[in-house]
Amino acid sequence: MTAKANAFYAQSGGVTSVINASACGVIETARAHRDRIGKVFAGRNGIIGALEEDLIDTNRESASAIRGLMQTPAGAFGSCRHKLKSVSDNRAEYERLIEVFRAHDIRYFFYNGGGDSADTCLKVSQLSQTLDYPLQAIHVPKTIDNDLPLTDNCPGFGSVAKYVAISTREAALDVASMCSSSTKVFILEVMGRHAGWIAAAAGLAAEQEGDAPHCILFPEIAFDRKKFLARVKRSVKRYGYCVVVASEGTQTADGQFLSDAGTRDAFGHAQLGGLAPALAGMVKDELGYKYHWAVADYLQRSARHIASQTDLDQAYAVGKAAVEFALAGKNAVMPCIVRGKGKRYRWTVGEAPLADVANVEKMMPRDFISRDGFAITDKARDYLAPLIAGEAYPAYRKGLPQYVRLKNTPVPRKLKKRFRVG
Amino acid sequence: MTAKANAFYAQSGGVTSVINASACGVIETARAHRDRIGKVFAGRNGIIGALEEDLIDTNRESASAIRGLMQTPAGAFGSCRHKLKSVSDNRAEYERLIEVFRAHDIRYFFYNGGGDSADTCLKVSQLSQTLDYPLQAIHVPKTIDNDLPLTDNCPGFGSVAKYVAISTREAALDVASMCSSSTKVFILEVMGRHAGWIAAAAGLAAEQEGDAPHCILFPEIAFDRKKFLARVKRSVKRYGYCVVVASEGTQTADGQFLSDAGTRDAFGHAQLGGLAPALAGMVKDELGYKYHWAVADYLQRSARHIASQTDLDQAYAVGKAAVEFALAGKNAVMPCIVRGKGKRYRWTVGEAPLADVANVEKMMPRDFISRDGFAITDKARDYLAPLIAGEAYPAYRKGLPQYVRLKNTPVPRKLKKRFRVG
Repeated sequence: MTAKANAFYAQSGGVTSVINASACGVIETARAHRDRIGKVFAGRNGIIGALEEDLIDTNRESASAIRGLMQTPAGAFGSCRHKLKSVSDNRAEYERLIEVFRAHDIRYFFYNGGGDSADTCLKVSQLSQTLDYPLQAIHVPKTIDNDLPLTDNCPGFGSVAKYVAISTREAALDVASMCSSSTKVFILEVMGRHAGWIAAAAGLAAEQEGDAPHCILFPEIAFDRKKFLARVKRSVKRYGYCVVVASEGTQTADGQFLSDAGTRDAFGHAQLGGLAPALAGMVKDELGYKYHWAVADYLQRSARHIASQTDLDQAYAVGKAAVEFALAGKNAVMPCIVRGKGKRYRWTVGEAPLADVANVEKMMPRDFISRDGFAITDKARDYLAPLIAGEAYPAYRKGLPQYVRLKNTPVPRKLKKRFRVG
Repeated sequence: MTAKANAFYAQSGGVTSVINASACGVIETARAHRDRIGKVFAGRNGIIGALEEDLIDTNRESASAIRGLMQTPAGAFGSCRHKLKSVSDNRAEYERLIEVFRAHDIRYFFYNGGGDSADTCLKVSQLSQTLDYPLQAIHVPKTIDNDLPLTDNCPGFGSVAKYVAISTREAALDVASMCSSSTKVFILEVMGRHAGWIAAAAGLAAEQEGDAPHCILFPEIAFDRKKFLARVKRSVKRYGYCVVVASEGTQTADGQFLSDAGTRDAFGHAQLGGLAPALAGMVKDELGYKYHWAVADYLQRSARHIASQTDLDQAYAVGKAAVEFALAGKNAVMPCIVRGKGKRYRWTVGEAPLADVANVEKMMPRDFISRDGFAITDKARDYLAPLIAGEAYPAYRKGLPQYVRLKNTPVPRKLKKRFRVG
């Protein structure tokens, strides 16, 4: 048990629809324990804010503004992809962190991110020993990729999953309406560079035989042009149309991403990120079907307007638990989601040692993907379905969601020495 | 006033989130007048269903299934893009229509579509004279493009507008979170081949100076690469990032679509529909900023999960009014939306002569676009804002919207002669 001290909170890596709900969980819980936690300082643009002593005073935000984070997507304090090297490789950065923390009496460190961030958080957690500064570091899980180990699922994923499943169902109705005389193939490209969790979620859109999606492309299954085209053709013959959902990580057996196919525009300039148009090109060239394609990109991970209530609740819960863990004297741990046994979905928050989380990627089990490699199994469906349950609608004004704008007031600097990252 | 007869209803052209609400308006209102209207037959896949005598008996659908159309996107009976030629050019098709209508005692014709369909509907409305068959033809307006004349706006547009405005606001928060060390430019490609109404709607996302979108590309404004890049650069310098919303119809002064820039993949195959990646390529080559891009495609026009309540109400109202017009003995007219005067938005349903609607495209007024050509004016904002008001949420089950599936029972054929379109 430490005496009263301040806390540092930072958002890391790609943002999600509900990462701010975790921020809300951290800040509200800290405020409920003012006897132990003084102020919560947020890093402007993630850990960079700590290194550059660019801190945000969250105490300057009203209770309703902090509550507004519950319904605001993306990172309200800014995020970054800066990964700290090992202490031996970049001792200067760690020493700087300690300097800043010491100057602002920060002894709680809450780091909200994915796999890379868990690694950073683990290194910070070791500083109390290596640099002799009393610090408790707790990792708050967040990633749309759902690839963190030990936790049943990752806050941020459920809302992307919901968006992708809904969008697939909706676009499929559109294509089905028109397919007799117009577009027959629709391709939706979704995120997921290494694991097919997001693409798999599209499979929830199907309720009965013949429903879209008719073809899911996973990074886990080597792309085979011939088999893909045969699948599309079969679907068009049987159902009149074909909806393809492709993970951006779709790759050939030799590990080449299809999106890196080296497309060039009329001026010969390389163009990147064209998995959906590349697939559409194959369909057009080989099968001659009229096609349309969509790339959801950031829309999918910022779609707070249709966030999953389950996801939102869990995002808040891990933020809250992180503070409670800290108050209980823990260090180098991560709150995780534990799925209850039994048919009805129940979840609780558990505790995972950070050493077992950092740098481990949870791939989708092979038995979540159908034998032919183009669909999800019932096992995947049972796992995924509860994660998209419930609609957490934000408040609207004049037809638009009212996302909160924080003041993000800077904390006055205390150190003379400046430090620039990168 | 005619004696009791059956009605024909068909959906035409690209579908929308709320075209089925118009179908619901037609069918429910017809059902309320069983003394005058016998059955409503729907054309399977639009007018093609009439020509091929492939009719759907909507009487076989329960009241709750028909009500379910209110919350189901796309065309529940199927649509097509078949445009009837003039009677002198293709008399056979018109004679066939009359044959089918006569066989099924159809004397009310409700055609739910855009500009091309208005033209077809007008031609059909003249059949009572030219081919001596008593028929009343009423056009039910629908188009996401908002380009029909005489009506203040088109059912279908408000929901796309809402989707685009929300998506722009959400994705902008995402980019803003990351821009200090990662993606600085985000490009969203939206529909609108000829008119910039949909791109303009993105402008509603901005509430104050510096808000996204920072650059809108309209088909109405000739694309100037230099000015575009200067705009992007200025926005990144000022605000740290730039959100571009580009209409698919963006074109150069000589009328070349940017999306037809002739991109080719690694195998030399032509790839179509790459406005967003083409713009991203320019940004990368000339400014070197990290970018992301999204193409919403069908997602935007099928996004019933976040339809505008105003749009939904209007879509139903024009369907209802069409039947009331028919019962009042009218022919060759279209119910239209009339905006009331005064600050508070009010609307009523008026009546437009089809002859003045067919083949006229309503472009966006120049004074809806800012002088520099990259933003909307307050006038545009005042026009657009009420159209996206209200959230018409569908019902959900297991985290997914419950869209109705009709039985679409075929009406037994009465004609021996078969007719094939195309």
